[in-house]
Amino acid sequence: MKMYQEKLNEIIIEKNSLLCIGLDVHPDKIPVYLKKEPDPVFAFNKAIIDATCDITAAYKPNLAFYEALGTCGWDSLKKTMAYMPENVLAIGDAKRGDIGSTAERYAEALFDLRFDAVTLSPYLGIDSIKPFIQHKDKGVFILCLTSNPSSCDFQYLEAEGKPLYLHVAEKVQSWNQNNNCGLVVGATHETEIRSIRRAASELPFLIPGIGAQGGNLQAAVEWGTNEIAANALINSSRGIIYASSDQNFALKAAEAANQLNYAINQERRKKGKYDSGSR
Amino acid sequence: MKMYQEKLNEIIIEKNSLLCIGLDVHPDKIPVYLKKEPDPVFAFNKAIIDATCDITAAYKPNLAFYEALGTCGWDSLKKTMAYMPENVLAIGDAKRGDIGSTAERYAEALFDLRFDAVTLSPYLGIDSIKPFIQHKDKGVFILCLTSNPSSCDFQYLEAEGKPLYLHVAEKVQSWNQNNNCGLVVGATHETEIRSIRRAASELPFLIPGIGAQGGNLQAAVEWGTNEIAANALINSSRGIIYASSDQNFALKAAEAANQLNYAINQERRKKGKYDSGSR
Repeated sequence: MKMYQEKLNEIIIEKNSLLCIGLDVHPDKIPVYLKKEPDPVFAFNKAIIDATCDITAAYKPNLAFYEALGTCGWDSLKKTMAYMPENVLAIGDAKRGDIGSTAERYAEALFDLRFDAVTLSPYLGIDSIKPFIQHKDKGVFILCLTSNPSSCDFQYLEAEGKPLYLHVAEKVQSWNQNNNCGLVVGATHETEIRSIRRAASELPFLIPGIGAQGGNLQAAVEWGTNEIAANALINSSRGIIYASSDQNFALKAAEAANQLNYAINQERRKKGKYDSGSR
Repeated sequence: MKMYQEKLNEIIIEKNSLLCIGLDVHPDKIPVYLKKEPDPVFAFNKAIIDATCDITAAYKPNLAFYEALGTCGWDSLKKTMAYMPENVLAIGDAKRGDIGSTAERYAEALFDLRFDAVTLSPYLGIDSIKPFIQHKDKGVFILCLTSNPSSCDFQYLEAEGKPLYLHVAEKVQSWNQNNNCGLVVGATHETEIRSIRRAASELPFLIPGIGAQGGNLQAAVEWGTNEIAANALINSSRGIIYASSDQNFALKAAEAANQLNYAINQERRKKGKYDSGSR
């Protein structure tokens, strides 16, 4: 059984990529001609994966998009997961947070689908995280500082001299005994990423907010990665999967993915030795 | 279209009940003879609903238990929701928290299933709540102070002179323009319930933690309800639905539900005039 962090490190080196592609698929946004397919959502995902998997470290289906389609959506997700190549990380973006027996049921549901990692909410504390991190071959990314405007409603509240998001970062670092905890840190908060990396030097970061949300790629790489410019995944969803709505959508997605991966690796190069492992 | 708060008030009066039954159904825990049924989980829920609906204000399926069963679970949940009587509130215990287009997809998924209300996590702020509360006929219960031991990991952090859970209570009160916001407040925190009720006098409370978790029913009613001992739902899951694992499980569930409802109403009586509406 390969440990989670080891798998993450190997993929980043092998692919020379921190790129994570969000598979947030809305049936109204996929090319019209795909609608003739028996399962248009899966057909779309399959084409995106085929076109981008050589340079992609992780795929991240957001479960809301599949749940909204009911049992059909669940089927599309299952097929997508069965189609995942070996050498990528599959992240279930679920943002779940529940306790005890319920958290165990969520862990079962998500890991049965063969996700390597899932996103979780911190609000209920370690009780809601433990059922996931006890699987040493699986990982979690816990919401720390999110990329949306109302992240300030609670995440910036100052307690004991530091903001809530830093309390989360420190707690998650302390929960990392199995080396499989990570943080979600939005690229829209440039200066904060730096303080979170200081508080949680060992944890992999999942960084959304590049692209449509206006996050800063340079800051994401400079402060989001570790000392060898690794141990982070930088996510883009719409900017890649909806690069075109025509028959050439997969080709255009591959171009967008290549461009972003190139831009990320340019920033990694500025940081120095980035190809010698992730920790 | 009936407004959400109006529906909640009417049910509480009509049923003379604050009782919420959690439908957290695990296939290993249902009576063996039901396993011959084409859909054992639905057969179990149907029997529980038939036996208890005359005294139950709300049913609360926890989505984790259905998701863990894959497409079959989704089907059981759909059938259960189609079977819900008119005069109960159906609460989707989902504890979702995501933003923008994703939150919209979750709202769609959950309200398509005909839930009257859902539970949500506060961590991402109003962005993650708005897509739900813009539906004036639907409600939300936002996690405020949870009943689990590690609720203290973050919820008690003191910021600006008060704990995080009170910040959540006050913010949610300020979001209540459509009169459809509520709070989840665990019965295991007796003194805290009082301060949360002061901070959010108008909001309905969903109160778990009675029974197996050792919550205090007297405090839950005294401080969890409003001035006329209404505007709250008190949840029990395992204590009712697993009261017996024999063929008589539905009868035993009804007995347990009756006992708890009677105990709740005894406490409501101590508080005074409780039968004259909820606000």
